[in-house]
Amino acid sequence: MSRRGEFDLIAQSLAPLSNTANGLGLTDDAALFDPTPGHTAVMSTDTLVANVHFLPDTAPADVARKALRVNLSDIAAMGAVARGYLLNLALPETVTDARVDAFVTGLAADQQAFGVTLWGGDTVRTSGPLTLSVTAIGEVRTGRALKRSGAQVGDQVYVTGTIGDAAAGLRLLSGSSSLAASDADFLADRYRLPQPRSTVGPRLVGLASAALDVSDGLIADLGHICETSSVGATVRAADVPLSAALRAAIARDVLSLPDALTGGDDYELLFCAPPAVHDVMKTLGAALGVSIKAIGEITQGGGVTLLDKNGGVITLQRAGHTHF
Amino acid sequence: MSRRGEFDLIAQSLAPLSNTANGLGLTDDAALFDPTPGHTAVMSTDTLVANVHFLPDTAPADVARKALRVNLSDIAAMGAVARGYLLNLALPETVTDARVDAFVTGLAADQQAFGVTLWGGDTVRTSGPLTLSVTAIGEVRTGRALKRSGAQVGDQVYVTGTIGDAAAGLRLLSGSSSLAASDADFLADRYRLPQPRSTVGPRLVGLASAALDVSDGLIADLGHICETSSVGATVRAADVPLSAALRAAIARDVLSLPDALTGGDDYELLFCAPPAVHDVMKTLGAALGVSIKAIGEITQGGGVTLLDKNGGVITLQRAGHTHF
Repeated sequence: MSRRGEFDLIAQSLAPLSNTANGLGLTDDAALFDPTPGHTAVMSTDTLVANVHFLPDTAPADVARKALRVNLSDIAAMGAVARGYLLNLALPETVTDARVDAFVTGLAADQQAFGVTLWGGDTVRTSGPLTLSVTAIGEVRTGRALKRSGAQVGDQVYVTGTIGDAAAGLRLLSGSSSLAASDADFLADRYRLPQPRSTVGPRLVGLASAALDVSDGLIADLGHICETSSVGATVRAADVPLSAALRAAIARDVLSLPDALTGGDDYELLFCAPPAVHDVMKTLGAALGVSIKAIGEITQGGGVTLLDKNGGVITLQRAGHTHF
Repeated sequence: MSRRGEFDLIAQSLAPLSNTANGLGLTDDAALFDPTPGHTAVMSTDTLVANVHFLPDTAPADVARKALRVNLSDIAAMGAVARGYLLNLALPETVTDARVDAFVTGLAADQQAFGVTLWGGDTVRTSGPLTLSVTAIGEVRTGRALKRSGAQVGDQVYVTGTIGDAAAGLRLLSGSSSLAASDADFLADRYRLPQPRSTVGPRLVGLASAALDVSDGLIADLGHICETSSVGATVRAADVPLSAALRAAIARDVLSLPDALTGGDDYELLFCAPPAVHDVMKTLGAALGVSIKAIGEITQGGGVTLLDKNGGVITLQRAGHTHF
């Protein structure tokens, strides 16, 4: 199939995803953003490469949505509300118009779901694999962004949702198993389409002392908080929230519990907060319909210690997964 | 040579390019930006792919600087002052630490030259060619950004610097010629390292009615202004500023004058302004040490008409160069 030129692609497919105030209908050299008075602009960017960050047979709509969602997850982790995004698309010569249209359809669906619009970007061709970068832009009350550096000794460690599903999902997409189809589909979907906690992040401002989203693996990412905050942490393995599907997958040796805790791609929020707000967290989770669970404590010293039911130390062979 | 992992690359090479206020030392999920009160954030992003946007033997420092500069040029074209940038780097498996270090050295030099710092980004590996996206962030007085859409019938059309050098430079880098070495080097440098007009752009706020930077070619880019502003334009070919080196190149058939006017990669500012500010433009150019030259007029109708010395129409085979 022939492929449209850059100008046609922008005018026909991408401009309808844009707006006038920020994206200038994609006719200009740059995008404009006025944060709400009293707010600071927040920007996050991630690059996905075919075969490295998604499987080659992934539907184009899912590729587009994942690229957007991993960045919306970063924006949420800063306590910010996402407003728009920039899209850099390097398309292989072989890509068809139909695949590009499917890609755009995926973006349109997620723009609706997450309240963002396309503000700008660049479209080029490449002799290599499909490569896309999304830069998400949001805003947070000035001086109140959630950073990795604020964890205090005595804080509790919380995580949203469930951990390890995506690691199991990737394993299942790469092989076969005796898992029930409904469980396998659930886990594969958790890998394919992460759920950014966009409703939770902004509500943590003023409550959480430090936060990030789990992309490298629960233990590795808690390690990032510890390093940046100059503290240590303990995690009670039995308290880490696991989905029923993941428990079934572990029972059938799809992956081990340690692999679930270090597997990455969860895109759940991991954050620290003083014990005083424990009840507020319970109420918040219930109000938002998202599990928010305490799984450990911030301690003196450094590094992350994983504890079993009896308080014994579980030794991990690796802390996390690198996307590099 | 072995290659450092992502974390080491960030901590050792990239973090020194960052700052605390905006980049958070590259330890967090996102960057923060508070525009100066009364100002709007401006964001521009471009992707460069090896062998498509730069020649395979280009020095890594020049690749880095060009990627940054083409975005600084976009920021200037909006009338904005650049403050920082995000860097998305997809590195082939074969890239060496030494090449990455040279790349970083190039960024450091241009950060100094243009007053920007690294606020964030992402580093991944690719099975394809080196691919880099830079997102430049700046600010402009709220409501005063220079857009493509403001050109008015009767405005004069201006361009900074000289046009066509980069097109000749690319031609020279791809072949041989009898041009004097000093001329050939000048033209090749103009292709390799564009000079963003960062001092000029912000000074055009309140004077220019429309602006952009010339990347697709003088005629094509003026066509973009005409289309977005619903006007036409004439350009007096004899008034388009050409460097002495380019004149020599044209005399030796390195490229034709039409190829110079449509070649692209100039990264000069092309803008429109009412006749009343003509003398102000002269003074401004002299004050900044940058040529600012009137080359035509905005007219009713549509499209760009190129005129010879006698007012006859010069027909072009193509309007511009597409980077797609």
